Amino acid sequence: MNEECDGKCESCSKADACTDPKKERYMEQQALKLRMSKIKHKIAIISGKGGVGKSTVAANLAMAFAVHGYVNRVGILDIDIHGPCIPKLLGVKDRRYQVSPLGLGALPVIGPMGIKVVSMDFLLQSQETPVIWRGPLKMQVIKQFLSDFMWGELDFLFIDVPPGTGDEPLSVMQLIPEMDGTVIVTIPSEVSEDVVKKAVSFSRQMNVPVIGIVENMSGFTCPKCGAEINILGVGGGEKISEEMDVPFLGKIPMDPRISEDSDRGMPFIIGHADTPAAKAFKEIVRKIGRFLEDRERLESPPKPSPREEGS
Amino acid sequence: MNEECDGKCESCSKADACTDPKKERYMEQQALKLRMSKIKHKIAIISGKGGVGKSTVAANLAMAFAVHGYVNRVGILDIDIHGPCIPKLLGVKDRRYQVSPLGLGALPVIGPMGIKVVSMDFLLQSQETPVIWRGPLKMQVIKQFLSDFMWGELDFLFIDVPPGTGDEPLSVMQLIPEMDGTVIVTIPSEVSEDVVKKAVSFSRQMNVPVIGIVENMSGFTCPKCGAEINILGVGGGEKISEEMDVPFLGKIPMDPRISEDSDRGMPFIIGHADTPAAKAFKEIVRKIGRFLEDRERLESPPKPSPREEGS
Repeated sequence: MNEECDGKCESCSKADACTDPKKERYMEQQALKLRMSKIKHKIAIISGKGGVGKSTVAANLAMAFAVHGYVNRVGILDIDIHGPCIPKLLGVKDRRYQVSPLGLGALPVIGPMGIKVVSMDFLLQSQETPVIWRGPLKMQVIKQFLSDFMWGELDFLFIDVPPGTGDEPLSVMQLIPEMDGTVIVTIPSEVSEDVVKKAVSFSRQMNVPVIGIVENMSGFTCPKCGAEINILGVGGGEKISEEMDVPFLGKIPMDPRISEDSDRGMPFIIGHADTPAAKAFKEIVRKIGRFLEDRERLESPPKPSPREEGS
Repeated sequence: MNEECDGKCESCSKADACTDPKKERYMEQQALKLRMSKIKHKIAIISGKGGVGKSTVAANLAMAFAVHGYVNRVGILDIDIHGPCIPKLLGVKDRRYQVSPLGLGALPVIGPMGIKVVSMDFLLQSQETPVIWRGPLKMQVIKQFLSDFMWGELDFLFIDVPPGTGDEPLSVMQLIPEMDGTVIVTIPSEVSEDVVKKAVSFSRQMNVPVIGIVENMSGFTCPKCGAEINILGVGGGEKISEEMDVPFLGKIPMDPRISEDSDRGMPFIIGHADTPAAKAFKEIVRKIGRFLEDRERLESPPKPSPREEGS
């Protein structure tokens, strides 16, 4: 082991024969950087509070972009290690990963519209198997999901992050410092408000822009009599966005058809495209698209015109 | 530092002057054991999946037992470090801990009916402050919640455990090996089913009995026209309990009044005692009570009658 190793293998003459653990870490980091450099936009879907429909929003976002011009150009990474839902929501449950024949890495599972899916779920023996892991092991597997999988060239990677501001969200933010932004999902109740404000602060502390807040399960219309009932309240997400000065992306009403669609592995924007929920979702997708366009424009300012150059 | 320290301070002549970290760990363990030995029943409310109403179930359970014969004899420990909700649900938000004047420990916040409440929430500067912590720090704070707080003599301690099967649930199960059992909360949808099965397996792997499954947000009755609508499906909890051979405790229907009560810090079994939800909850409480009685009976078998002794 080279005592003076600086972990910069490209400048080391002994790299080929080296067994220093630093080399492994360096190679892993390089692989991660390389894989991520081929993905144009990375967006984390976070929530603070669980059960707000974060995975449903993530799956529908991936589907919306795939359908509208990005077939085979979208990936979704499910880093909910203990309760992965994305495979079920995209109808690819019970699949398994394949390994590249050339040993270059593992291949994501291919979902509808060519969406590339990576999730802990594909590694579990049965649905009843709990993953009883502490943080360091979770950090390691998230790193491998990013570095060891052959994501290929993509326009979008959506990352479904489990609730809270602990190991998983922290790991993914540190591993992908170039994250475009976070979409924060909430339900309208006050109890959830407090927790979601923490998610906004978390995103800011990590220096990742908040693209905006989605208020899910917002109001309910009785399918029999048309009465409007606010089962979990309404307006909580809008209130947070005002109080914390972040964009509001939209409200998705409660609808039994969303849960039915989720259970049969069909994103509701496809399964029930004409519902108020799907229409609201399209508007959310449009706003996220515009955020990314604005960001691109800011990052690569237009070249000065000849007249300006000459003046 | 004593190189041969076995961490058993009572048998060591140098204990008073000792600065070995083992001594600190030993003292902490002894304090934890002592505090927990004074609490008759400890029940963890777990879920696997977030947002299923686990904290609502925990807060209402504490209230139900406190109201029915156990005033000042119930505690609730909220180990959701990232999104603590219990203080809000019991109407004691914005309170702060007091420290015992004799330096014997911190005092839990006293909630309604003398319920002793310990939560990360009471330590946060503002509602927007996220707790960006990895696992080891969370383990440490959970240990302190159990060992450094003056719980006193209690009949019940309900522990609200955040979703998943990671650091927090693992820590609390290891710290309280004598846990009476777990109450597993779910919503009826299929997506949640898979995750809840993991919680059942987790409880079994930890050698903690599953007291039973509660199916929350189960069906909805339109308050205007009386139509029954299964917003998130119905029967998922019952199905899991059959498939995994664990008791089914009951179904709590969706009701906008539950969310309203939660937002104003009033457990719904008190705020709306006559609703179908509150009635269903009372039946759940009865079943948990019976489980604990049966367990006590099994642990302390009746003394043999004189005739049996003589025979």
